[in-house]
Amino acid sequence: MREVAIIGVGHTKFGRLKDKDLMDLLIESSIQAIDNSKTSDNDYDAVYVASMCSGEFNQMTGVASALVDRINLLPAAADHIKNGPASGGSAIKNAFYSIASGLCDLVLVTGGEKMTHITVPGFVTSAVATITHHSAERIHGVSLPSFAGLLTRAYLDKYNAKIEWLDSIAIKNHKNGALNPNAHFQRDIEGFMKSAIKKGRGNWNNINEYLRDLKANPIIADPLQLFHICPISDGAASVVLCPADQAKKYCDTPIKITGVGQATDTHIIYEREDMTVLDALQICSKQAYKMAKKVPMDIDVAELHDAFAILEAVQSEDMGFFKKGEGAKAAAEGKTEIGGEIPINPSGGLKARGHPLGATGIAQVVELVWQLRGEAGKRQVEGAKSGITCNFGGFGNNIVSILVERM
Amino acid sequence: MREVAIIGVGHTKFGRLKDKDLMDLLIESSIQAIDNSKTSDNDYDAVYVASMCSGEFNQMTGVASALVDRINLLPAAADHIKNGPASGGSAIKNAFYSIASGLCDLVLVTGGEKMTHITVPGFVTSAVATITHHSAERIHGVSLPSFAGLLTRAYLDKYNAKIEWLDSIAIKNHKNGALNPNAHFQRDIEGFMKSAIKKGRGNWNNINEYLRDLKANPIIADPLQLFHICPISDGAASVVLCPADQAKKYCDTPIKITGVGQATDTHIIYEREDMTVLDALQICSKQAYKMAKKVPMDIDVAELHDAFAILEAVQSEDMGFFKKGEGAKAAAEGKTEIGGEIPINPSGGLKARGHPLGATGIAQVVELVWQLRGEAGKRQVEGAKSGITCNFGGFGNNIVSILVERM
Repeated sequence: MREVAIIGVGHTKFGRLKDKDLMDLLIESSIQAIDNSKTSDNDYDAVYVASMCSGEFNQMTGVASALVDRINLLPAAADHIKNGPASGGSAIKNAFYSIASGLCDLVLVTGGEKMTHITVPGFVTSAVATITHHSAERIHGVSLPSFAGLLTRAYLDKYNAKIEWLDSIAIKNHKNGALNPNAHFQRDIEGFMKSAIKKGRGNWNNINEYLRDLKANPIIADPLQLFHICPISDGAASVVLCPADQAKKYCDTPIKITGVGQATDTHIIYEREDMTVLDALQICSKQAYKMAKKVPMDIDVAELHDAFAILEAVQSEDMGFFKKGEGAKAAAEGKTEIGGEIPINPSGGLKARGHPLGATGIAQVVELVWQLRGEAGKRQVEGAKSGITCNFGGFGNNIVSILVERM
Repeated sequence: MREVAIIGVGHTKFGRLKDKDLMDLLIESSIQAIDNSKTSDNDYDAVYVASMCSGEFNQMTGVASALVDRINLLPAAADHIKNGPASGGSAIKNAFYSIASGLCDLVLVTGGEKMTHITVPGFVTSAVATITHHSAERIHGVSLPSFAGLLTRAYLDKYNAKIEWLDSIAIKNHKNGALNPNAHFQRDIEGFMKSAIKKGRGNWNNINEYLRDLKANPIIADPLQLFHICPISDGAASVVLCPADQAKKYCDTPIKITGVGQATDTHIIYEREDMTVLDALQICSKQAYKMAKKVPMDIDVAELHDAFAILEAVQSEDMGFFKKGEGAKAAAEGKTEIGGEIPINPSGGLKARGHPLGATGIAQVVELVWQLRGEAGKRQVEGAKSGITCNFGGFGNNIVSILVERM
């Protein structure tokens, strides 16, 4: 296979973007990536678009065909890739194959979602829940937050872990997000809470009391509270790929994709032997490490899929950064902060950067590119040379992992 | 790149399948293809699922993740590929890349749609219309049939063609479909009409009078009548792919995919210089011919996308079988019948085999595999050694063409 490089990246602001529709977002980040790769005068072979619910949320099923025309890349092939909240990772994987095969030379991958305009209560959560098992789960009323609550209970119980350790994941990601101009939330919530306590805005003596106050931080899916859960966001992100041996033509600091993995697990959650073990992630991250000839210890920075705080903890274990049951504690000990043993989610993660479903897997890679290029500003992980992602589809039943390195 | 072969095929009955849901259909054709390739004991690397509207029609957005589990192929990667009614072609293309790159060795591609259970009038046509341009077309009420009507008017006018020539395409495809046990419609409508005329069931003296009777054959999108338009169908189809140099391990009669093309055109129809010319098809079929080192004259059999009779005529021209303006006449002259110059749609095409959106592009390839293996029964094109498809996404704005040959 041919080696593949990332030569350009794009990333809109994530958040509640009232004045922009889905196409506006896809176009904005695509053009950023094309400009960033200095390829605006070149012919593209293919465009991949990741969007989980463009039909349900935006009444658009032809987003790839629409985008390729709007950004003037006709007659490039255009496909729409769906893998739930891991659609972005799957789109990058398929674009990677297209170049690795030798059949494509210049490929744009853009993911995006426009969700915040939906005002029908529960509509978004219900639409996302259509990725669960239809007859065994969905029709009985489960949702992704409800699964995350179950997983949290199982994890706290099995590993004698504390809910406060999960708080520390959210606090860290908000701290990082405050340093990311594209993040949905740019507020250091620890500083905010300290200031509220100091000003006597509630009956709290410390942050733990603040966080356990169910009025200030309500239960969403027991025991998960508001601060443990990512928002609903609008946004888009893009990468431009080409063969590694052509990358220097377009870009001074190309980043190589050296590992790609994707694996599936049982669709029905109760069929898994142990809900706290993500088999699919163990398998797909091993595929990525093996392809790149790396081990977890070699990785300088990771972008994980913290749609719920518990997921970052479990993922950091199943990707090999920590032993099983030690991920949440490691976060509480500061090991995953920028400057820590293995910085996780310097971007702010899904919690603070936001989670426009189809954009997320691509935004993770964009963040790693910025980190590896040394362009991550105040949230830079010093000297980062390699990074890996976990992009989580379904509830752990279809996971994509992308490993990138400096060239 | 590595060469790629098809080693197994599956195809459910197409039609109004009341007792089967989408997953039943995907599973049935997948298992047929796995059995047909004798790979049920092998590890699969990836599964691609094509379905245009599984979210809208079946409240299932995780069809690929669901299928891979149900047919016991965990932990294979699983992606859902969407390209409107060309989703099947796009899924085969991406599976082809995955093997050509050297990264996958055994890949299942299954496409399907379950549509006939929908009872809300206009729901299906409206959902399909979401592939048109949102603000320039869809919100003003266009539909795919309305575009086909416009194209027919433009074609009849520009080339001085006759609507009767389009009738002959439908009559031929129904005749072929009557020989295909998987077809939605298995009735030779010419024989049916002749018998009705003979029995004096209406005031018709000949078939042309029957077909022009707007009670017997009502207008759907002027000037297109009922008999010019494909049905709404349920069904699924599958292929199993592997590297060509491993194919004989699994299959006595592997068929090679020697050409793959995909190209896009303007999303907004009125931006095209001439609606009767399918630029995207000219480009993508040339890509496929070039990759396979073939010219149109070399092709023994073709499966085209006759969702509307006019499309088969125009496609047969833009793929190089006939000069512009001569496709419909050629069909009327019998040149595209089984046994003719270039047999088109021996399967019955979308008109008679049916059109379960995501299944169609794969069903086309399955038919070619049967033809090239000599397994097409009463509809066999004698000695067929090469075949090509046109799988039409949007209204000609995203087209996939797959060229297959005997090994």
